[in-house]
This record gives sequence, structure tokens and C-alpha cells, in this order.
Amino acid sequence: MLNINFKRLNGRLQELSEVGRTSEGGSRRLALTDADKAGRDLVQRWMIDLGLEVSIDKIGNIFAVLKGSANKKPIMMGSHIDTVGNGGHLDGCLGVLGGLEVIETYIENGKIPEHDLAVAIFTNEEGARFQPDMMGSLIHAHGLSLEDAYQTISNDGKKLKEELERIGYLGDMECGTIIPHAFIELHIEQGPILEKENIKIGAVENVQGISWTSVTIKGQANHAGTTPMSMRCDAGYAAALLTVRVRQIAEEIGGVHVGTVGVINPKPNLINVVAGDVKLTVDLRNVDEEKLKQSEKLFEDALSDIAELEGVEISTETLARFEPVKFDDRVACVITQAANELGLSNKRMNSGAGHDAQMMARICPTAMIFVPSRDGISHNPKEHTDEHYLKSGAEVLLKTVQKIDGGTVL
Amino acid sequence: MLNINFKRLNGRLQELSEVGRTSEGGSRRLALTDADKAGRDLVQRWMIDLGLEVSIDKIGNIFAVLKGSANKKPIMMGSHIDTVGNGGHLDGCLGVLGGLEVIETYIENGKIPEHDLAVAIFTNEEGARFQPDMMGSLIHAHGLSLEDAYQTISNDGKKLKEELERIGYLGDMECGTIIPHAFIELHIEQGPILEKENIKIGAVENVQGISWTSVTIKGQANHAGTTPMSMRCDAGYAAALLTVRVRQIAEEIGGVHVGTVGVINPKPNLINVVAGDVKLTVDLRNVDEEKLKQSEKLFEDALSDIAELEGVEISTETLARFEPVKFDDRVACVITQAANELGLSNKRMNSGAGHDAQMMARICPTAMIFVPSRDGISHNPKEHTDEHYLKSGAEVLLKTVQKIDGGTVL
Repeated sequence: MLNINFKRLNGRLQELSEVGRTSEGGSRRLALTDADKAGRDLVQRWMIDLGLEVSIDKIGNIFAVLKGSANKKPIMMGSHIDTVGNGGHLDGCLGVLGGLEVIETYIENGKIPEHDLAVAIFTNEEGARFQPDMMGSLIHAHGLSLEDAYQTISNDGKKLKEELERIGYLGDMECGTIIPHAFIELHIEQGPILEKENIKIGAVENVQGISWTSVTIKGQANHAGTTPMSMRCDAGYAAALLTVRVRQIAEEIGGVHVGTVGVINPKPNLINVVAGDVKLTVDLRNVDEEKLKQSEKLFEDALSDIAELEGVEISTETLARFEPVKFDDRVACVITQAANELGLSNKRMNSGAGHDAQMMARICPTAMIFVPSRDGISHNPKEHTDEHYLKSGAEVLLKTVQKIDGGTVL
Repeated sequence: MLNINFKRLNGRLQELSEVGRTSEGGSRRLALTDADKAGRDLVQRWMIDLGLEVSIDKIGNIFAVLKGSANKKPIMMGSHIDTVGNGGHLDGCLGVLGGLEVIETYIENGKIPEHDLAVAIFTNEEGARFQPDMMGSLIHAHGLSLEDAYQTISNDGKKLKEELERIGYLGDMECGTIIPHAFIELHIEQGPILEKENIKIGAVENVQGISWTSVTIKGQANHAGTTPMSMRCDAGYAAALLTVRVRQIAEEIGGVHVGTVGVINPKPNLINVVAGDVKLTVDLRNVDEEKLKQSEKLFEDALSDIAELEGVEISTETLARFEPVKFDDRVACVITQAANELGLSNKRMNSGAGHDAQMMARICPTAMIFVPSRDGISHNPKEHTDEHYLKSGAEVLLKTVQKIDGGTVL
């Protein structure tokens, strides 16, 4: 029986976390910055030291492959190592280094798999510096053209292709070359469900669809003391009504539906002036496309109702719209079996966040393994998962790979 | 019959508006800045050129006096000439230059009043650079000690006394020396009521009481995709509920009550994060102290209800609390009579904004004359009042002064 070396895995997580460490103890390795390069260099050295065959494609995705005995399509693991501006140490890195640990476990035990085993580092999953997010996996799955991606300008005004070249990760392998037999991404949940329910492993079967809208409300900025209530066109009040309505819609749709107004920017934002303009954002998510559409319809109805009620003009812009992704049920079942065999409590669940796995699901059987996040916190230096959970997650990843390599039908 | 020279008055308004003009066409003469000094120098020169006796007190208030024939206490006019960061040309200046025009009308007609006539420029009415606002008139009315005012630090880190000295307006007259027979402040309405009702003159009989509260809501910042609705402590949603409740309270109290949430600052203010903290402000106003208290009570009840409902912590800080001010009914009646005699439509009304007159009301019979503001806009380069309204306002000011000087009993 193979066992992962958790001390080694944890040591690598720690070492990578030192690259781009922030004063608050977080990680800052924004895509294609010097810190991202340093992180890539570090992990690539570990890959090469293990004797893996490393390829870099034209969008900077890194693939490390252990050849199997039967020349079968690779079972691929992996995730990303770029971070948000002040993120945690586990988001993405656990999937990459967990995958590397699985491969090293095979190697040090002299065990040769039938399938090739691969671990991928996808470029720019976070989308914090270059948009869209999940860019490397999206291009790998033919969802975005390389030329379009190359023209992308970062928040700090740099062209993506030049940044890739500058940090030495503009590879020559064509994008989408490696089509896996299956893709499994180990990741922290980034939500509170596993912790609250005291469950160790999530077998992720869906990724929520996302509908992001920017809303601009134009009212009339007026003196808060001299403008009678009946003469107001208060963009701040309209924004409040809309925020309350987004919550009501979530309650009406029910189930796993979530709706959030996260950004509110009123102008002039003064104590004694009725807000003349408000910009806000609405984030609606559901795993069921029909329900997501239903929530969008209710939201649109609310816009016109509120515009009429308060005498404001409301315009919207769609910032992002992704349909829900259904992962491969067979892969999710293998994950469940693996957890059960290891005696780890587990549940089938949805991902509320986006992940590279949802892009890979377009080209091969895919699912994800979640481990609990303390307080559900992520994209924050406080992001934390207890070590025994990290270990369990890597063990489930190893066993899942073994089962698939052993012939579980996909 | 005396008549004001509107062309002269309007010319002075224009000339003063050139001092500290902003790129958007507004006025920027923040209290005790170089621009404020330049404005003061200009108006003081006009006062001196008219042969008025000019005194400056220890808080920089400027008083110009025309001696009357009977050595009676002065009938005082005036207002302020400091502005907000990008304000209009009329707010304050109309009251000062209108008062100066009334005095010049007496002089050029060789008419000597029984009472002294005075025009005042009060220091720092706006409170945009040094707090509190209405500072000069407040000190004149013994509502704030000079020593406390001297220690005030501006938003840009300067001590008030040093700034007074630096611009040459630290006078030597004791504050509160001149106690008027009556005080009349001509001002733009800064609200929409006169315009909407097509009325030329407001005889202002009350100033609303003001209750300003800063509210801090602490919830839990969480991922908008991964946090089920049932597990949220959403400070943004709580802020929206509170904003809606402030409107409901205004409707419940009714009448002239106004309630406004003007500032909303959520953190982290990201599209995909449930707001963990929100700071907002609540502005409640009523001319009736009991009703203002009632609205404060309803507001406090709402805080605890919402805190419990959403599982957030809410704390508050009182930023300002002024009881309503009742002006002198006799002075307001004289204004009404003056407008009627001039054939100008008029109404008794409240002031929703604060004015130097409300401080002067503590020490002498006081009322205000309002003229319409286009779209109710003020504190903005778009602030505008048609010239014929400005002229009417100055005419009513002159006639009101004549009536009081003529012996209307106060």
C-alpha cells in the first residue's frame, strides 16, 4: 500500500508560501510577476529533481509527466500557484503540490503506473492581474484563443505576452497538446460547509454557474436637509432596495442559490447629500442553469420596479456569465469510494468558486476533492486548513489516482 | 423710495466668484486658506471704500458698520464667504453682498438710518476645513470658547489660530461685542421647495434640528460563492435594511421630517465577497424636537432588530446633534410684509440646512430670507439662482431693514 509523505508535502507548501510573502503573512504571487516566476522556478526545480518530463506551453502552463508502463493517456492532477494580492498559502498550491506528492510517492516506492501521471500548473487562475481568470486552463480546453490572451493588458498596464516572455515562461508547446484520461483537482473548499458539518472530504460534483452584473443607478444628488422626502430620487435608497431584493430572490429560489451585493460605491458619499449615483455589483450563483436564469429574471424585474418607484435610472452591464459545470459522476464516485476506504467522512457537494477543473471538464472526465477551510475564509492571509485535513486530502487524491489507474471504468 | 442697484450687487457677486474659481467653474475658498484671505481682502476693500467702520474680532469675524442717527443698536445683515471644496458662488456671498448693497443704497441716497446698520462676514460657516461649522457665529453667540476654537486642527493638519494669524485676520475685538437689534440673513434656499412651488421669497421661521450618526456594522467577510445564505452575517445586507428603515421612519414621522443615508463604505467592497464591515451615516432632521427624538428612538430600535436578524454587531457614534431653532416670529412677519408690499409671492418655511442666523438667534431677534435654488442644488458648481430672484431677495432685505429701522416693534 502506498502512503504519501505528509511531512514532505507540508514542507513544500511552507517553502512555496515564503515566495511573495506579505507583511500580513499572506501570499502575493500575482500572475506573471517576479514573485510568480520565483514560485514557478521553485516548483519546476522539484519536478525536474524528480526526473519528470517538464513541458511549458505557449500560455505558460507547466506540465510535469511521469511515464507509465502502458503508454496510456495521463491521469492529470494539478491546479495553480498564482495568488490574489494578499491571499492564502493553500489556494491552488495544495492541488499542485498534492499532485507532485502523489507522483513522488509512486517513484519512491518503485511503483510504475500504467497510465502516465501528470501534474499541471495552470497560468493565471486568479484573474487578479490579467482577466479573465482560469485563463491557462481555459486556453488548454480551447475556450479562449491564444492571440486574444496575448493582447490582454494587466491592471498595471503590461501586455500578457511580454510579461510571459519577461519571466521566461513563454513555452513552445502548443496549447491543448496533453489530453488527460482524467483530471482531479485537490483544493481547499474556500467555504464553510465541510467545517460546519464536520466532514473531512468533499467529492465535488458541480461548479455553480455565475452571473455577475454591474449596476449603475442615476438619481439626483441633493441636500439631505432641504430636499423633502417626496422630491427625492435617491440612488442610495434604490441601491438598498435592490440589495434587499437580491436577498429575497435567494430565499425565493431556495436550495443552494446564493446572491450577493458585494460592491457599493455611492457618490458623492457625503453625510448631508442624498446619493446622486451608486455603482454596485450583483453576484448570483446556482448549480442549476434554469434556476440561475430564473433568478436573473427576478433581478431584472426588480430593477424596473425600483427605477419606477424612486424615479432613478438604472443601467446594467454583464461582467461575467458562466453556466454551471457538471463534473463527471464516475470520477466523483471514485473519490467517494477512496474516502470511504480510508475511513474519512465525506459528502458530494458543489463548488461555489471557479476552478481550473471546470475548464478541464470540457475535455476529459473531471472532478475535485475538497478539504475544509477554517471559517470558510480564503483569498486572505487567514486562510487555513488543519494539517490532518491536508493529509487526508492528499491521501484521497493518491487513492483516487490508483483506482483510476487500476482500471475503474471512465 | 430706496432701490437697490442690482447691477452693482451682481457685479460684486461675479467679482467675488472669480476668487478661488475651480476648473469646474465652482468656488473654492475653504476657511482661512489663501483664497479665503483673498475673498476677505476684496470684500473688506469694498466696505472701507464705502466709508464703513470695519472691525475684526478674535475669531476673524468681520463687521462693517454704518453709523445711524440715533445711536441705536445695529440692524445686522450678513452671512459668510467661505465655501466648500467645490461650491457655488451664492451660498453665503449673497447674504454678505446683499447686506453691503442695502447699506450702499442708504449711503448713495443720502438716507441716514436711525439704527446703525451692520453687515457681518462670519468665519468658517461651512466647516469643510475646520470643524464645527458655523464657527464664527457660534463663538459670537457664546456657544463655543475661543480657546477651544483656536486649538482646532484642519483637515490638512493646520492649527486654526495659526491660520487666522497667517492670513492676517486674527483681529483684536472681543468676540460677541456687537449685539444687534435684529439679524436678517439673505440666503439661497439650497433646496427645491420655492422653485417647485413657483414662489419667489421664503420667510424662514425655523431651522431644522439635526441628528447625525455614524454607524459601524461588523459582520463576517466571506466568499460570495461558497457561503450558503443561511451562514451569512452580511454587513452590506444589514446596511441596506437600515437604509430602507430610515426611509420608512421618515414616512412614519411624516410632515417635514427627512432621513438620509448619504455615506456607505463597505469592506472589502469586492464583487465576490460578502461585506464584512460597513460604515454608513444617518442624517435625521425635523423642526420639532419631539419628533426628532421620536425618529431617533425608532432608528435605535431598528439597529437592534437588524443586528439580531442578520447576526451582525452594530455600534454608533453621534457626529452632531442640534435642536431645532425657532426664529423670531416678528422678524419673519416683517419679511412677509416686505415681500407682500413688493408684490412678491412668498411663504413661511423652514431651513433644512444650518446657517449663521441660527447662532445669531441665540442673542437677538433673527430670521432669514430665502430665494429659490435651481433644482435645489447647492455645494456644487451647478448652484444657480436666476438674477431676478437675487434682485427680489435683496429688495426684500432692504425693505425689511427699512421697516425695522422705521420702528416695527421687535
